[in-house]
Amino acid sequence: MNKSEMEINNFIDSNKQRFIDELIDLLRIPSVSADSKFKDDVAKAANFLKDKLLAAGADLAEIHETAGHPVVYGEKIIDPQLPTVLVYGHYDVQPADPYELWDSPPFDPLIKDERIYARGACDDKGQMYMHIKAFEAMTSTNSLACNMKFMIEGEEEVGSDNLEHFVRENKDKLNADVILISDTSIISNDNPSITVGLRGLSYLEVEVTGPNRDLHSGVYGGAVANPINTLCEMISSLKDENGHITIPGFYDKVEELTKDERNALNEAPFDLASYKKELDIDQIHGEDGYTTLERVGVRPTLDVNGIWGGYIGEGAKTVLPSKAHAKISMRLVPNQDSEEITKLFTEHFKSLAPESVKVKVTPHHGGQPAVTKTDSIAYKAASKAFEDAWGKTPIPTRDGGSIPIVAMFKSELGLNTVLMGFGLDSDAIHSPNESYGIFNYIKGIETIVLFHQHFARLKKIE
Amino acid sequence: MNKSEMEINNFIDSNKQRFIDELIDLLRIPSVSADSKFKDDVAKAANFLKDKLLAAGADLAEIHETAGHPVVYGEKIIDPQLPTVLVYGHYDVQPADPYELWDSPPFDPLIKDERIYARGACDDKGQMYMHIKAFEAMTSTNSLACNMKFMIEGEEEVGSDNLEHFVRENKDKLNADVILISDTSIISNDNPSITVGLRGLSYLEVEVTGPNRDLHSGVYGGAVANPINTLCEMISSLKDENGHITIPGFYDKVEELTKDERNALNEAPFDLASYKKELDIDQIHGEDGYTTLERVGVRPTLDVNGIWGGYIGEGAKTVLPSKAHAKISMRLVPNQDSEEITKLFTEHFKSLAPESVKVKVTPHHGGQPAVTKTDSIAYKAASKAFEDAWGKTPIPTRDGGSIPIVAMFKSELGLNTVLMGFGLDSDAIHSPNESYGIFNYIKGIETIVLFHQHFARLKKIE
Repeated sequence: MNKSEMEINNFIDSNKQRFIDELIDLLRIPSVSADSKFKDDVAKAANFLKDKLLAAGADLAEIHETAGHPVVYGEKIIDPQLPTVLVYGHYDVQPADPYELWDSPPFDPLIKDERIYARGACDDKGQMYMHIKAFEAMTSTNSLACNMKFMIEGEEEVGSDNLEHFVRENKDKLNADVILISDTSIISNDNPSITVGLRGLSYLEVEVTGPNRDLHSGVYGGAVANPINTLCEMISSLKDENGHITIPGFYDKVEELTKDERNALNEAPFDLASYKKELDIDQIHGEDGYTTLERVGVRPTLDVNGIWGGYIGEGAKTVLPSKAHAKISMRLVPNQDSEEITKLFTEHFKSLAPESVKVKVTPHHGGQPAVTKTDSIAYKAASKAFEDAWGKTPIPTRDGGSIPIVAMFKSELGLNTVLMGFGLDSDAIHSPNESYGIFNYIKGIETIVLFHQHFARLKKIE
Repeated sequence: MNKSEMEINNFIDSNKQRFIDELIDLLRIPSVSADSKFKDDVAKAANFLKDKLLAAGADLAEIHETAGHPVVYGEKIIDPQLPTVLVYGHYDVQPADPYELWDSPPFDPLIKDERIYARGACDDKGQMYMHIKAFEAMTSTNSLACNMKFMIEGEEEVGSDNLEHFVRENKDKLNADVILISDTSIISNDNPSITVGLRGLSYLEVEVTGPNRDLHSGVYGGAVANPINTLCEMISSLKDENGHITIPGFYDKVEELTKDERNALNEAPFDLASYKKELDIDQIHGEDGYTTLERVGVRPTLDVNGIWGGYIGEGAKTVLPSKAHAKISMRLVPNQDSEEITKLFTEHFKSLAPESVKVKVTPHHGGQPAVTKTDSIAYKAASKAFEDAWGKTPIPTRDGGSIPIVAMFKSELGLNTVLMGFGLDSDAIHSPNESYGIFNYIKGIETIVLFHQHFARLKKIE
């Protein structure tokens, strides 16, 4: 480690408690983008970040209003000759429902067993804020290796609907050499990894209507179609007994991996017994002929995210309801196209409807799948950074989740993205009792600093 | 019409407005038995009835506390030699959710187009209160033909759990010649009918659990069973493509009708086109090989009354939930046994569960199917009463709904029941905007009076 690296690490070490306290302050703000009643809190979080960027050494930090929640932009340009790293993150969080399943309140962060428990602790506040602290560590020790730009939005959890417009309107401002995102996970703290593949997303809401009003299930039961029963039958037919999705054309553009690629993917450490134990399930379940890592990383899937209809309150009510609803999403892999899949689903689902009901399908936000090349300079810089900080070469992995804007950044800005995340599956993002390890938070800051240094070095000798 | 009948009809006519006003007062009380927050209102309705029974001429009217909501008992014994009619009804009502679908508040009765709109207007307050007004008309004109007893409970909508105990504890008090109930409907005002068959009921709640917490559907989608998808598949498999229920042993005890019986049943007026039009459906749906009247009257059926799981709030949430739930009920016909069917369903449903999930089945209240003989004195009295008041012989029909206590009255008190109801399908019981026609309310009172007179006469010459 050189003198500069030692200074930076000392700075991080001395300011560790403040780094944690600031993250806690950010986590207190319930910036839930999906629910309009938290609108003001979302704006408050944006302003918090703007102030922190300036305090960390940004020359410029501003709030960009959009048709929805604002984008926070910040930058420090030290030398136009140096490469520029554009950091993307999001300050909005998932809803915290159901609140009763949290052991501590989701927006009253708790530190326990060296972990921070709060909604957004990992996804994405903890992960995003590491970059601002890494930035601060570098500016404070006068060791910034690249120009830095920050684009932190407030609508990732609801589809980033206004981000594309912001990007288009600010192409010059956003000019850079690479985009860096921390919103993914590593296999474990003993097995660091870099996500080189993300699944795409297609999300729809369906509504099945039977009779024009709720009916008495004695007077009408058996005589007319029950939209809940019908919805169950339609959903059930979307997969066959092999876990294969039955929508015509669904798999047409799926890129099958070669035998070697499958072998490489399956070499990543994976302990089925503890996977099942952690989730308290007796058996896993998925598409025949594929391992768990493949099912999540390289195969498209379909899940019902929510379903409701009829009487769901206390006690019994013998109703034959008028309507039944479901929220359904599909994870996609290269080269499936999100809009095309949404269209195929819509046509197929409508065709499944018997004449005794009416069906409405409403598409929500989607996103394209994406893959990063491991022979790029940016990937190499990230890999080296992990080697230095974690003592191990990171394994390239295919992640199950989606970050739709990665493909949009490529098409609009011509920029590739490196997904250098530090979360763990057990952080339970999107679930109750989400948390982030303080170890990962601090180690992440160190790794990010090293990325900047390696990226600048490798770009120089390119 | 004799002098006595003319007097009675004049009395009814002169007091028509008061009869309506009193019913309106009763309808104002939100006596929702399914929801504990209305407990005091349920008690209030019981007291209201007690007072009205006394005002109508009862020698005795009392509130009997139970482990749940109270039973109101009233009587007037004029002559032990005369037959005794025991009237059963219920003063509790269905929940009114969803409130936003009501055009006028469910507990703020509205009179419009000669109809009373309120929760309970028909089921069962309007129908039950006709008996108290018929009683008043007879006592006021000194023309009571039979001894009268009233047993009005407050838990019918939640399964009458405490009624059997009340009946057992009061067998002597409840001694009578027949039970009269108004809680069913006629085909139309042009086609009066008497319900001679009721379906039974088996009601259960099921819960399917996958992982031990809600998961991120990107990280885990495709790798583990999604309990919503699994629940849909399990529900879907409960019926085959012919609308036939697949639970082993389900149909074993079903009494098939003879060809003649089926023909007779299908002679009842039924207009498929207006049936569909009224419900705004393009096609009916049910068990192959049976007409709509048969599907509802003499065939057992299965309906999902409620289903919920995952995220059902505003916007999108990509969750793979831990649990999915459903409320499922079956309507039964002679000679199916409610407890046996509940057991068959439970065993079968649990057996459907793949190893990747855990299933919990919780039975709710049930009820046995019941059939009335058309050659009984009571039936003949009711039939004659309709002929006199409506100018037409009523058609004997098999109703789709359940009144579980009818079978219990037979086994505990040895009494048969006559189901002489005056509702219409379009009253929309159990639905928003329930109503009861003032014509049916008043005509019902007249018909009930005639029943008493014919019953006394036929019993005398028996």
